[in-house]
Amino acid sequence: MDTADPDVTTVTASDVLAAQARLRRYLDVTPTHYAERFGCWLKLENLQRTGSYKVRGALNALLAARERGDLRPTIAASAGNHAQGLAWAAYRLGRQAITVMPRCAPQTKIAGVAHWGATVRLHGESYDEAKAFAAELAAQHDYRLLSAFDDPDVIAGQGTVGLEIASAVSPDVVIVPIGGGGLAAGVVLALKSQGVRVVGAQVEGVDAMARALRGDDRIIEPVTTLADGVKVKVPGQLTRRVLGELLDDVVIVREAELRETLVRLALEAHVIAEGAGALALAAGKRVVGKRKCAVVSGGNLDASVLATLLQDVRPRPPRKPRQRKQDRLTPPAATHTALPAGLLPALATATHSMPRTARINRKEELPA
Amino acid sequence: MDTADPDVTTVTASDVLAAQARLRRYLDVTPTHYAERFGCWLKLENLQRTGSYKVRGALNALLAARERGDLRPTIAASAGNHAQGLAWAAYRLGRQAITVMPRCAPQTKIAGVAHWGATVRLHGESYDEAKAFAAELAAQHDYRLLSAFDDPDVIAGQGTVGLEIASAVSPDVVIVPIGGGGLAAGVVLALKSQGVRVVGAQVEGVDAMARALRGDDRIIEPVTTLADGVKVKVPGQLTRRVLGELLDDVVIVREAELRETLVRLALEAHVIAEGAGALALAAGKRVVGKRKCAVVSGGNLDASVLATLLQDVRPRPPRKPRQRKQDRLTPPAATHTALPAGLLPALATATHSMPRTARINRKEELPA
Repeated sequence: MDTADPDVTTVTASDVLAAQARLRRYLDVTPTHYAERFGCWLKLENLQRTGSYKVRGALNALLAARERGDLRPTIAASAGNHAQGLAWAAYRLGRQAITVMPRCAPQTKIAGVAHWGATVRLHGESYDEAKAFAAELAAQHDYRLLSAFDDPDVIAGQGTVGLEIASAVSPDVVIVPIGGGGLAAGVVLALKSQGVRVVGAQVEGVDAMARALRGDDRIIEPVTTLADGVKVKVPGQLTRRVLGELLDDVVIVREAELRETLVRLALEAHVIAEGAGALALAAGKRVVGKRKCAVVSGGNLDASVLATLLQDVRPRPPRKPRQRKQDRLTPPAATHTALPAGLLPALATATHSMPRTARINRKEELPA
Repeated sequence: MDTADPDVTTVTASDVLAAQARLRRYLDVTPTHYAERFGCWLKLENLQRTGSYKVRGALNALLAARERGDLRPTIAASAGNHAQGLAWAAYRLGRQAITVMPRCAPQTKIAGVAHWGATVRLHGESYDEAKAFAAELAAQHDYRLLSAFDDPDVIAGQGTVGLEIASAVSPDVVIVPIGGGGLAAGVVLALKSQGVRVVGAQVEGVDAMARALRGDDRIIEPVTTLADGVKVKVPGQLTRRVLGELLDDVVIVREAELRETLVRLALEAHVIAEGAGALALAAGKRVVGKRKCAVVSGGNLDASVLATLLQDVRPRPPRKPRQRKQDRLTPPAATHTALPAGLLPALATATHSMPRTARINRKEELPA
């Protein structure tokens, strides 16, 4: 059991606002960036301290605990990013942290935790095994056990992502990756009262929360996925309650789509996302919205994995942009005759192609 | 000759301000991001439209020409990014653009130009050969020939990078990559009167501007470099005049440093820079400053090049952060005894290590 008693624990939008007030002094607002080739905004949490949004929840939990006078060392199980976030937060506040990670955690995440001076224990083959061991250690030594997602302080901290998106770009829909559900629960609390739709994204075969929300509570071993950060067998109880009430939809993404999106993010948007970080954008294709924003939740990817993906995945070229109005009003036919012969075929293609998709042009040009 | 007569052409800080007013309607401000592992701010022009700052100068040139009533098709020679910037600007304004690129230009840059509907001509093996061919075509067909750097409108447009950095982070020194000198000239015009030092970065063996500024005017074939974007044999005349007057220093970077910085940017800061884009940050290590900002000028890197770099380059692990004050005030000795035996060695290491470097912590914590 991660929280004292999830049946009576609650978390609300005011907790998210309180978290924002606490975190403001320590963390900068991350960029919300319009990715033209995707027609979608990206909340770049891969540019967050420690390379993922997880530091928000961990730092909020330590700060809230300090307000309550709880200065025990904190222990957490994590696929990697929660551990890094906790390690950074503990470093920043001069506190002690112990983290338990499964042996399969990416090297970059393990190194990140050690970098900030926290203790690293590698145990078990999955997040859930690591979690059981962390709970054991916590009971033995009276550490504070901090869940990676099923904790009101953690959820409230992650929700600040939603507040930042809303004030940056006024979206009509925000897409978030779901593992245990901490980020999604926080964001949904932050945004629903502002009239923003929130859609979750999960990977095919790693969709425990989607099944739980449909009432299917079987515990199924997740398949292997690039998105190690969301590979959770048993979703949170508190997060499930929040999402069951407020989440608009869950989109399931195929592994191949995820890989292609990750490579396109690198080559076309020039940002590096880890597997789970590309998940929301991959789901975004199937989400209807005029101002969509996908959360790029983290960027901690091993060099060898990225190198392999870059060699193996050849994304289709992006669709051509729609011709702009001015083009059609002033047909360049007269100019054509003045062009050297070599230019004609290429120009003809460029001028007469009429691609199918429209891109959102946020800044409309006024006539000169 | 790129400009009508560089001896009488001038460009000033007011041209940069005029450019900012023109571009505001079309381009968002790019993020200025603090890279904790580097102790340096990054101006992320790899997140700019078309993946490089070059779109600023090209768009400003087209807009300024329209104000002057010059609506001729525009032709430009470019190693790739200026061509992409021009193609996007022409698409955006419904104008016609022709670009000449050397055959060795990266695939991603060639595809980018074609994507926005501009005509692509591949000619010659270097920027300088492409430039000669573009000048020929321009004379033949009365196109406007737009230099990639030696043009007042282009310089003024690139200078808006400097204005954005200054209002985002109040730096004491800004580091920019130098090829022909357009970005550096613009930034120096924008920042010198604000009391900000500006330092240029060049690659060993591709340092025409550094030599020209020392009075060495020999024309030397540049060596092969990862930083294709700054591989210029003959620097601009106008840019040279501006830089000779205002630039504080030029740092020469070795190719190996450049490669390592590019890989570290990907793995530790989660952003993809092209060779020239990592140049300023690589030089930044040798620049003294309390609030340093390096311009990541672009991110258009071929997938295969990045994959190879990720496999070949193993950056040294970053130095440990300095222990924070609270750690030292409350020694965790008492806690040690309560830890299980397995934890002791790791914790001991974490607690007693006292690394050498200090990181800039922008947000100072107040006592709780």
